[in-house]
Amino acid sequence: MKLYNWPMAPNPRRATIFVAEKGIDIEIVNAGDPENPSRLSPDFCHRFPHRRVPVLELDDGDWIAEAPAICRYLETLYPDNSLMGRDAREAAQIEMWDRVAEWEGLMAVSEYFRNTHKAFAGRGVAGYANEVPQIPELAERGQFRLGLFFSKLDTQLDDREFIVGDRFSFADITAYCAIAFGTSRRLAVADDCPNVTRWYEAVDARPGVSAAA
Amino acid sequence: MKLYNWPMAPNPRRATIFVAEKGIDIEIVNAGDPENPSRLSPDFCHRFPHRRVPVLELDDGDWIAEAPAICRYLETLYPDNSLMGRDAREAAQIEMWDRVAEWEGLMAVSEYFRNTHKAFAGRGVAGYANEVPQIPELAERGQFRLGLFFSKLDTQLDDREFIVGDRFSFADITAYCAIAFGTSRRLAVADDCPNVTRWYEAVDARPGVSAAA
Repeated sequence: MKLYNWPMAPNPRRATIFVAEKGIDIEIVNAGDPENPSRLSPDFCHRFPHRRVPVLELDDGDWIAEAPAICRYLETLYPDNSLMGRDAREAAQIEMWDRVAEWEGLMAVSEYFRNTHKAFAGRGVAGYANEVPQIPELAERGQFRLGLFFSKLDTQLDDREFIVGDRFSFADITAYCAIAFGTSRRLAVADDCPNVTRWYEAVDARPGVSAAA
Repeated sequence: MKLYNWPMAPNPRRATIFVAEKGIDIEIVNAGDPENPSRLSPDFCHRFPHRRVPVLELDDGDWIAEAPAICRYLETLYPDNSLMGRDAREAAQIEMWDRVAEWEGLMAVSEYFRNTHKAFAGRGVAGYANEVPQIPELAERGQFRLGLFFSKLDTQLDDREFIVGDRFSFADITAYCAIAFGTSRRLAVADDCPNVTRWYEAVDARPGVSAAA
């Protein structure tokens, strides 16, 4: 198997952290264009018309896209050190919070980034060619939504070490990738969210997380 | 258990169709405000600060939000008549296509709907109070993206009865809910997508789908 990554992008990082935390030995390939760091390579886009990373290419040439689908597939193949839930209810809580982190956190950061960064003019949404104009109001909306996400996460982490229960999970990975990407774009954690700051520093210090930086 | 629905909204319909197709006997509760059909009831929003439907309330009062998390939980409890995959690879293909249907189909329709309908002024994204202004460019972008989704789906259905392999699955449910909601908002399937039209009519005629109308 090969896992296609695009260093710095938050979505493939969900998969590379997942793999590192579980200790899965897998070849990781850079899907970026060496001649243009803000684009996926033409070869990748040709082979995988999904046009988004991560992609997991299987040994028979079939492939799976979308970070949660890839990670769940790997979780089934490598059940040790579960990151997606040990029973139905824990799995449901993790998936719910993963989606909150994605829709309210990662998507908010992406709305800000994709609609402000000059190199992404015409590419306001991932997975499309140069067809989607930037919308400045969406950058503003993303910043606003990210603030609400910080508050919601701060409340959730008030009496918990991790987002779901007392174990690190895929929900923590997605929230971390959203916030780490935001921080790199000057969207820092709000000062009035000490639980998020405490949790973020703890996640950031994990060997599996820094291994997938 | 109780499943909170909001008739007409596409996301909870993913869960009500799932439940009807699997033949799960579960109480379905209307979360809408009887005095204001375009809003969730104040009681629902107070009890479930997630502010989105569907929500599955468990017998001990705990709850799960987000359609895919609810459906996967029910799939584990009621494994007969699998709609989310009989093995790891089928499950991954279904989850990937479910996400394509959600991000490229359902989200596109919602962008159009939420940013044009007068009753949703100030509520451009589901799950927030009256804080998110409508963005007209986003309605336009949604229509554009929906057209690309129709084409992608038409290609996928060219040699398949259903979206993944030869079985009806959760991916079909999500794509159907997106398109049915679009159709109700005058966003009909494009004329040059005969495979989508054939598939849509077949899904629409299923007893489980009409039971959850």
